[in-house]
Amino acid sequence: MQQKRKIINDPVFGFVNIPDEFIYELIQHPCLQRLNRIRQLGMASYVYPGAQHTRFHHTIGAMYLMDVALLNLRDKGHEITKDEYRGALAAILMHDIGHTPFSHVLENTLANNVPHEEVSLLLMQQINDEKKGALQTAIDIFRDKYPKRFLHELVSGQLDVDRLDYLQRDSFFTGVSEGGIGAARIMKMLDVIDDKLVVESKGIYSIENFLMSRRFMYWQVYLHKTAVASEKMLTNTINRAKYLSRNGEDLFASPSLAFFLKNDITLKDFRESPEVLEHFTNLDDNDIWTSLKVWKSHSDKVLSLLSHGMVNRKLFKIQITNEPHPTEKKQEFIEKFTRKYGISESEAAYFVSADSLATDMYNKYDESIKILYRDGSIKDISTASDMFNIELLSKKVEKYYFAYLRD
Amino acid sequence: MQQKRKIINDPVFGFVNIPDEFIYELIQHPCLQRLNRIRQLGMASYVYPGAQHTRFHHTIGAMYLMDVALLNLRDKGHEITKDEYRGALAAILMHDIGHTPFSHVLENTLANNVPHEEVSLLLMQQINDEKKGALQTAIDIFRDKYPKRFLHELVSGQLDVDRLDYLQRDSFFTGVSEGGIGAARIMKMLDVIDDKLVVESKGIYSIENFLMSRRFMYWQVYLHKTAVASEKMLTNTINRAKYLSRNGEDLFASPSLAFFLKNDITLKDFRESPEVLEHFTNLDDNDIWTSLKVWKSHSDKVLSLLSHGMVNRKLFKIQITNEPHPTEKKQEFIEKFTRKYGISESEAAYFVSADSLATDMYNKYDESIKILYRDGSIKDISTASDMFNIELLSKKVEKYYFAYLRD
Amino acid sequence: MQQKRKIINDPVFGFVNIPDEFIYELIQHPCLQRLNRIRQLGMASYVYPGAQHTRFHHTIGAMYLMDVALLNLRDKGHEITKDEYRGALAAILMHDIGHTPFSHVLENTLANNVPHEEVSLLLMQQINDEKKGALQTAIDIFRDKYPKRFLHELVSGQLDVDRLDYLQRDSFFTGVSEGGIGAARIMKMLDVIDDKLVVESKGIYSIENFLMSRRFMYWQVYLHKTAVASEKMLTNTINRAKYLSRNGEDLFASPSLAFFLKNDITLKDFRESPEVLEHFTNLDDNDIWTSLKVWKSHSDKVLSLLSHGMVNRKLFKIQITNEPHPTEKKQEFIEKFTRKYGISESEAAYFVSADSLATDMYNKYDESIKILYRDGSIKDISTASDMFNIELLSKKVEKYYFAYLRD
Amino acid sequence: MQQKRKIINDPVFGFVNIPDEFIYELIQHPCLQRLNRIRQLGMASYVYPGAQHTRFHHTIGAMYLMDVALLNLRDKGHEITKDEYRGALAAILMHDIGHTPFSHVLENTLANNVPHEEVSLLLMQQINDEKKGALQTAIDIFRDKYPKRFLHELVSGQLDVDRLDYLQRDSFFTGVSEGGIGAARIMKMLDVIDDKLVVESKGIYSIENFLMSRRFMYWQVYLHKTAVASEKMLTNTINRAKYLSRNGEDLFASPSLAFFLKNDITLKDFRESPEVLEHFTNLDDNDIWTSLKVWKSHSDKVLSLLSHGMVNRKLFKIQITNEPHPTEKKQEFIEKFTRKYGISESEAAYFVSADSLATDMYNKYDESIKILYRDGSIKDISTASDMFNIELLSKKVEKYYFAYLRD
Repeated sequence: MQQKRKIINDPVFGFVNIPDEFIYELIQHPCLQRLNRIRQLGMASYVYPGAQHTRFHHTIGAMYLMDVALLNLRDKGHEITKDEYRGALAAILMHDIGHTPFSHVLENTLANNVPHEEVSLLLMQQINDEKKGALQTAIDIFRDKYPKRFLHELVSGQLDVDRLDYLQRDSFFTGVSEGGIGAARIMKMLDVIDDKLVVESKGIYSIENFLMSRRFMYWQVYLHKTAVASEKMLTNTINRAKYLSRNGEDLFASPSLAFFLKNDITLKDFRESPEVLEHFTNLDDNDIWTSLKVWKSHSDKVLSLLSHGMVNRKLFKIQITNEPHPTEKKQEFIEKFTRKYGISESEAAYFVSADSLATDMYNKYDESIKILYRDGSIKDISTASDMFNIELLSKKVEKYYFAYLRD
Repeated sequence: MQQKRKIINDPVFGFVNIPDEFIYELIQHPCLQRLNRIRQLGMASYVYPGAQHTRFHHTIGAMYLMDVALLNLRDKGHEITKDEYRGALAAILMHDIGHTPFSHVLENTLANNVPHEEVSLLLMQQINDEKKGALQTAIDIFRDKYPKRFLHELVSGQLDVDRLDYLQRDSFFTGVSEGGIGAARIMKMLDVIDDKLVVESKGIYSIENFLMSRRFMYWQVYLHKTAVASEKMLTNTINRAKYLSRNGEDLFASPSLAFFLKNDITLKDFRESPEVLEHFTNLDDNDIWTSLKVWKSHSDKVLSLLSHGMVNRKLFKIQITNEPHPTEKKQEFIEKFTRKYGISESEAAYFVSADSLATDMYNKYDESIKILYRDGSIKDISTASDMFNIELLSKKVEKYYFAYLRD
Repeated sequence: MQQKRKIINDPVFGFVNIPDEFIYELIQHPCLQRLNRIRQLGMASYVYPGAQHTRFHHTIGAMYLMDVALLNLRDKGHEITKDEYRGALAAILMHDIGHTPFSHVLENTLANNVPHEEVSLLLMQQINDEKKGALQTAIDIFRDKYPKRFLHELVSGQLDVDRLDYLQRDSFFTGVSEGGIGAARIMKMLDVIDDKLVVESKGIYSIENFLMSRRFMYWQVYLHKTAVASEKMLTNTINRAKYLSRNGEDLFASPSLAFFLKNDITLKDFRESPEVLEHFTNLDDNDIWTSLKVWKSHSDKVLSLLSHGMVNRKLFKIQITNEPHPTEKKQEFIEKFTRKYGISESEAAYFVSADSLATDMYNKYDESIKILYRDGSIKDISTASDMFNIELLSKKVEKYYFAYLRD
Repeated sequence: MQQKRKIINDPVFGFVNIPDEFIYELIQHPCLQRLNRIRQLGMASYVYPGAQHTRFHHTIGAMYLMDVALLNLRDKGHEITKDEYRGALAAILMHDIGHTPFSHVLENTLANNVPHEEVSLLLMQQINDEKKGALQTAIDIFRDKYPKRFLHELVSGQLDVDRLDYLQRDSFFTGVSEGGIGAARIMKMLDVIDDKLVVESKGIYSIENFLMSRRFMYWQVYLHKTAVASEKMLTNTINRAKYLSRNGEDLFASPSLAFFLKNDITLKDFRESPEVLEHFTNLDDNDIWTSLKVWKSHSDKVLSLLSHGMVNRKLFKIQITNEPHPTEKKQEFIEKFTRKYGISESEAAYFVSADSLATDMYNKYDESIKILYRDGSIKDISTASDMFNIELLSKKVEKYYFAYLRD
């Protein structure tokens, strides 16, 4: 019915059509709406004040690119049934619903090593039950159990619409325009051979550019030193709050945040207890910020100093180097803080964070990027490119950070 | 010192230089940092998912335009001392620090008719004391007590940098590109005659375009029906929470939000009690969202239905018309809700909201826009324009909304 | 066949698909390729150096918008057959092929009052013969002889894709970003009622904005005083060249330009002589520039001074006023030039140009813009708008220019 | 005087200020105005119809970046006198005035191996004489004879404003947005140590991105196969015209084009004969196009077929491969054309073109790019980068094209 035809304004891609009522209802689902309250880039807005865009907005953009990709593949003669089309759109719409507040920052902090993909899947299964199985194709695609496996590649692979959207979108909202990847150009050059995504050979420079832009965005945005400093500070703050909560302190928190602070929640708990999922879906960035503001006046010096720093942008100082930091350096800082604040060493340890940062452009064990030539032959990007060979592409650049409370 | 030279990436204006250490310290002040947690457009992100930009980002943009305007006026031969330059920048940086969460939405709801400009001024005075009078020029400019009155006009007038930034920025982040106003072009054509801002005559079409774009943005964004519906729903939600709080109910809220829910705070209280200002500066959008999520399970049916609607985007249905809605219509809806939910009429009244919406392009009682001709003569835009006369410019367009809980 | 699927990169609209082989062949036709050598904005690049875009590029953009419009109308349930779809695309592709060099500037100078639409039609008929009638639907739509008359409205009407493209494109390439009209938003809101284009009522502000942007572009770009000065200077130069040619002077010119300089060509000649059309299609901006550069050393002082001015940007000085210039003023200037250059009055007259400039936003005798309300009622924009009434909309703003050779 | 303060609208960089009257006069000089009639990208508009921007527009953009760079360096404490500032701006304004029509395409075709930089210098010296030595600093900077050698590096070096502008601008006008390089970000990170340009270490990713974007633009735009095909076809066309001219054929051409067709002009001729320079400055893209259109009806079959192809976009077919094409292939094609058109082998040779295409990202023998670390140490990008080593950076990618007349 035309009345229901909805259009979303997107400064990145222009107008995004919502193709039908089924998709519209998914977008309206509380699990999707919650993503409106989780920022895509966690703490990057400390550095790039425009980077306030949400997981929801990213999700809509990824759905748009999926739509473009599927129509393009149909144009090239590949059959994609209506059920597969909806399934692929639904899968990408829900790929991020399992994210914790602040996206990746708290993924391993709030709960005990629970990957967001697993939580996404659990929520998808729950919604599938609500919708009497209407999401089964989406779930199969998401889990790579669907026969046409290229659909899964579009959801999660080296050239998936997730990456293509977030690189383009993060570049746009940070104002780091050099990170733009030409998502539309890449979409136009995708094809499918033997159930695998390939890129037409004339697109090889776009792929090289995409790999470089990804690397650029890593160092310029995702691993920007101020972003890393604030993420490590937030992690330590939450860890301190968990410690206090689990030792009987009654911290200000929404009931759902309190639940995660007090209990050690594992993937098993997520799977077995509906209460865990319910608390989870109540959580978003707002719970954290609201607590931080209250905690900045808490009597525990560690919690209050960290929270105060987060709220008022007195972030950890940070050094990023090519060599690891000597282990005794951490101990020196801990001792200094012990003396300065009259606290124990285990308390002072919350004021320091040190570890490695790593990124590689391309993971050779992952699905690789295949280039299709006019004569029908196919090569991996690592051999097709004049520029990149496999050593270069899979080279892991490792750096080391050392972060600590600012005086 | 060059080390301290800071640059902020802005997708709207490119790179924004922070001119000196004094300004940098103001930007770092908790009152400015708080604006990072208040969205510029309140509820508009329900309609335009890109519109997540904050008051902080707007403030930085307005400072940029002030910088451009002042350098341009110096170039045209007008003396602007270093103290005036800093004062004008500081004044615009702080013009919004008195905003409540959700910007204008809750301005008259959380406290009792306290204009944000008054709170901004109180906070500026407090910071001025902290900084031993360094903000005196800024305060004088803000209050229009400074002798060079055109500086105040740049902070607050028909063509102030506040409007020029927000129209451009809101257009950018919503993706409503037609709202763009060419802020830079207007800046280049400003001049000062007899201590008043004027626009060179060749800029007259830009001014007409600016006035039209403002009107366009009003109807397309600021008064978009879904935005209005959500604002009215939020207002009623907060009003219900205040009612319950003041009648002994213990609602989940951060201490500072609880303070405003429980007490009827007037401008007099702001002026006389430092505690009020302190609670105020603790509040931002996060407190509201966190409480709404908890309140959606509250036992009070009115509060829980409204909160649930806000969180899960089941917003008020709304009609906007050119004629007022008959008064009995509201009563009919109230009675319907009374029956449906088994609640009293005064409770059901929270499910309905009806009033007028108005906008005018240009306020003739305000500072007007003056056009400077090559022969030195000056005319008001209302006589200079071929297009707009004073009736048209000051015509108040009034519309009427009727909003109510969706079944 | 997918091999043939062609895509054109357009910085304004992104990627433009060429839908099929038939359309691709039209685009390759010499009459279309010729438009690559005619600038869209004539002389505006003297003011806006980015405005080098061609009629060809505009044509491709207009075809893109036509495609969007037709798909949108099909989505809303209107039948558009494959033949109609191709016909409408072909009609817009060829709407400008009858343009002279420098677009409108020389339309009434090179030939004797021959409107470009008439020449477009003659060329379309010629191509239709080449293609054995394949363009008949396109021609019928172009001439408004096709039964579904809304297709003609899309080609030529108050909201046709021609205007929507050129306003958006000219705004983009000049850098006058305030002129942007949101062409895509308008496309989405078109509908057809009783075989007439209408705009959904929620689009009314976009329409107001479009009308204002058009006006803005007129004064800021199309009637910019430097553009007008150069156009008038070029017109006088060509007129002088025609005069000399017709009086036996052998001026440097390509054979086709020479043909138009020597002969007085009317619409009748175009219709009756294939030679005229052939010479016409050989002409583009290059012939004029090449001759101007040679003519600047010609022994005729009038021709050489004018040509020298065009080539080296010593353009006419110009005054634009709200009142007509007194007739004796022209005579004074002519006398001054007579004395200064030792030439006759009729020669000196080429150094002066004076007349009126006029624009109206909306022509009430034209197809009007109809607004469709939810209840099915339809109003003209002039009554639907809060802002514009019919007097305002159809008000003709008239200005007067007086241009003359710079000393 | 403020009246003279000129601003140019640039869709790429926004508003470009012309800093003073001296610079304004240079911009008005016929040698600069001529660049308005030479397209920056030669034939690329056959592929990217938006790529109509001129050498003039590029020059203005490069001047803008020079202005930004100089002000930034002054801010960092480096002395740049007013004379040096003007000299550097003038040098960049005139760096391209020695270009032939179609920029690089005809650089080695119209005259006999005369580099455009040499012609630029000759013209600068001529203008310097006109202006009584006012361009001496500019000339010294251009020739790298000025003591502060970093000024020359900004005009011509690995990170000069010429490249920074053209990459950004070509990316913008082609719509190949992935080619964007963040010129402004790079400008902000330049510094000078020991009279050499260096880049602050935090800019290293921007530099890597710049090098990659350059490579991307080479293959996606500058060496795009259709652009190469048309360039080779044009070169052969002009060579045929030269051959005919020098053998007594009277071809249609403007007097200045005829001069270059008939005579074999060397750098020595440029230096010794003012007539050569004068003819040269009369030439631009228009002369070529105008002649091609006339030549397409010439009786020489070679000239007419080539010209017809250029005008009507029947370009050479082209193959680009990683391996050289066998030499006998060319002979085969020549024989085929000999038979087909009844022409001699030497004539048929104009219908084929084959050679290599090469590009390297970075020339190690050139000025290198130096990275400045916080501890004051300096490394070359080839050792500083995690990504690029010197082999990779200076790797010459060589490809081979084979182009021939389309049937």
